[in-house]
Amino acid sequence: MKILAINAGSSSLKFQLIEKEQIISSGLFEKIGHDDSFFTINQKQEKQIIKDHQAAVEILIEKLKEKVALTDITAVGHRVVHGGDKYQTAVLINQQVINDIEQLQTLAPLHNPINLLVIKLLSKYFEKMVAVFDTSFHHTIEKPQYIYPVPYQWYQKYQVRKYGFHGISHQYLSQKALELNPNLKKMIICHLGNGSSITAINNQKSVETSMGFTPNAGLMMGTRAGDIDFNIIPYIMEKTNQSLSETINDLNKKSGLLGLSNISNDFRDIPKESLAYQKFVQIIVDYIAKYYVFLNGVDAIIFSGGIGENAHQLRYDVCQKLKILKIKIDQNKNKNHETLIHEISSAIELYVISTNEELLIYSETKKIIERETYERN
Amino acid sequence: MKILAINAGSSSLKFQLIEKEQIISSGLFEKIGHDDSFFTINQKQEKQIIKDHQAAVEILIEKLKEKVALTDITAVGHRVVHGGDKYQTAVLINQQVINDIEQLQTLAPLHNPINLLVIKLLSKYFEKMVAVFDTSFHHTIEKPQYIYPVPYQWYQKYQVRKYGFHGISHQYLSQKALELNPNLKKMIICHLGNGSSITAINNQKSVETSMGFTPNAGLMMGTRAGDIDFNIIPYIMEKTNQSLSETINDLNKKSGLLGLSNISNDFRDIPKESLAYQKFVQIIVDYIAKYYVFLNGVDAIIFSGGIGENAHQLRYDVCQKLKILKIKIDQNKNKNHETLIHEISSAIELYVISTNEELLIYSETKKIIERETYERN
Repeated sequence: MKILAINAGSSSLKFQLIEKEQIISSGLFEKIGHDDSFFTINQKQEKQIIKDHQAAVEILIEKLKEKVALTDITAVGHRVVHGGDKYQTAVLINQQVINDIEQLQTLAPLHNPINLLVIKLLSKYFEKMVAVFDTSFHHTIEKPQYIYPVPYQWYQKYQVRKYGFHGISHQYLSQKALELNPNLKKMIICHLGNGSSITAINNQKSVETSMGFTPNAGLMMGTRAGDIDFNIIPYIMEKTNQSLSETINDLNKKSGLLGLSNISNDFRDIPKESLAYQKFVQIIVDYIAKYYVFLNGVDAIIFSGGIGENAHQLRYDVCQKLKILKIKIDQNKNKNHETLIHEISSAIELYVISTNEELLIYSETKKIIERETYERN
Repeated sequence: MKILAINAGSSSLKFQLIEKEQIISSGLFEKIGHDDSFFTINQKQEKQIIKDHQAAVEILIEKLKEKVALTDITAVGHRVVHGGDKYQTAVLINQQVINDIEQLQTLAPLHNPINLLVIKLLSKYFEKMVAVFDTSFHHTIEKPQYIYPVPYQWYQKYQVRKYGFHGISHQYLSQKALELNPNLKKMIICHLGNGSSITAINNQKSVETSMGFTPNAGLMMGTRAGDIDFNIIPYIMEKTNQSLSETINDLNKKSGLLGLSNISNDFRDIPKESLAYQKFVQIIVDYIAKYYVFLNGVDAIIFSGGIGENAHQLRYDVCQKLKILKIKIDQNKNKNHETLIHEISSAIELYVISTNEELLIYSETKKIIERETYERN
């Protein structure tokens, strides 16, 4: 069964064509809508103006046809950012699902519309499509954790609650860690990239996570502020005469590593001595501390994402600040980016695992298609 | 040296006349500006309409005169909520100080104007007055802790940073704990009342605290939300058509215990099984966990404030959730509200200490007056 896994962002489109967990074809369209847009398919990069997601989809279809007949692709799995309260697992896309994703746009105005657009564009070519939600994995978080201490009717009437995101990645990583060590029960997964989140896992279930009602909560990120005192917002509006949406935009696009460093949103550009670096490390440590106690101890900490997989100095600095928890990092293994980077005497195991959202989209899609086929027969 | 310690709130005025750490007279004006206002002086309660803070001050002066000659009172010490970056200690009030407190109103619009009003009212009767700031104790917090991951110019141009509050109480409690055990170095102080905050202390210095740019950050409180995903604000504004200031008002006055319970902002009314109770306990635990790691271990946890001093069930529930840190609470001592409530085998000492902000206002004022007298001679 060949499945096309699709991961669309506001200016990007990532895909993998997978069969039996093997990648047949893969690629990434970047800077869609910009003059310097380009795509990389099967490791070959081509510069080309890609004016919108429709153009990207057309190129994708052409490139796929060079490899396989489209009719050979059983289904398409789409990453959809927000599934709300309703979608606790992946689901076969029908009109109702499309309507719901549309409805949920008010909760994810930056993400769901793009996901929906790409679903509609690909529906011209493929009959069976599955939505895999980035919120679903967090549906096991319990109410005292997902509720906010705000007027309760905001939850009842307007669904204000913690949803959590990056669920596809956290689910993939928790499964991968369990494959590496079947005894792991309590894990803290640090998905650290341009967007970052940390999840507490108990028995393969998400029980707490750092992102919240939106993906701009929890850790500071490349350009996002994460947790701040919300009273900064009206204060800055008054001081600068800028609007609420401009201020929220600053907190989405001009904060985090970029805002504090005034250098870059790219972690690789941030000096280790800078305030931005120190702050980022401390916030990661704070969340690990909180989840360590919340889980009543932890078996393993997993680092992943662009930063988590590559920044050995950050992993080291985080672990140094956790030494009261008897964590011992092995600097040789850490610098070599090995999978296991703790010393034998460490009270907590430390893993570096590459995330692969497309592979989880594939396996979730496969599961839904197999169930659907079984139920029809 | 007789010193009058003044602690003014938006609808209250608390005072203690103190000499050699002994209270000569004390009292509290409550619900100022409301029809059901009253005052309690030297344990005697009188119902009387107190239309504003000026009326309260006039009664206060009359009542003081019954006990002492006003000229016998050497100085007045005022709690002032916001001292900004500038005031790292208490200070003798002069025109410059008054101007600065006025300037700082934009940072503490609910508190500083009242503090200033009472300073002006009492200046008619007393020559020497001292401002004791609720922010000063936190001036030792270092930059990676007090900076927010927002555009850096917000800090440079507009002083957006963590200030921390309840400093007078945290300072008093850290001194009191040290008197009880001179070996204490690392403490976590939980000031839990209608307003709540938690501070990490290292060598008698505040190194982290839960309140932030404003006193509505950190823990959930009686009516305040504390830390939330700020994106809830524009979303609720859109859904309810209410203004930003109405929404911020909801987060100040209709959130926290009141918002989640729909019962009361008074902790005594909140059932132990309720979501509001569970959420409050969990947030306290989260902060203790974070500060435990930040301090790299801790010698003592101190409970204080109306809730911290009286709610033995809450103290018990908090400690149960901290058991991975080898904390052991002695339930007999805890239920009796003894000063030391841990078992001998507990890895961390547990204290219950009554806070007394007025006593610290007294001692800080005394210090300033003695230094000023010395410098003049």
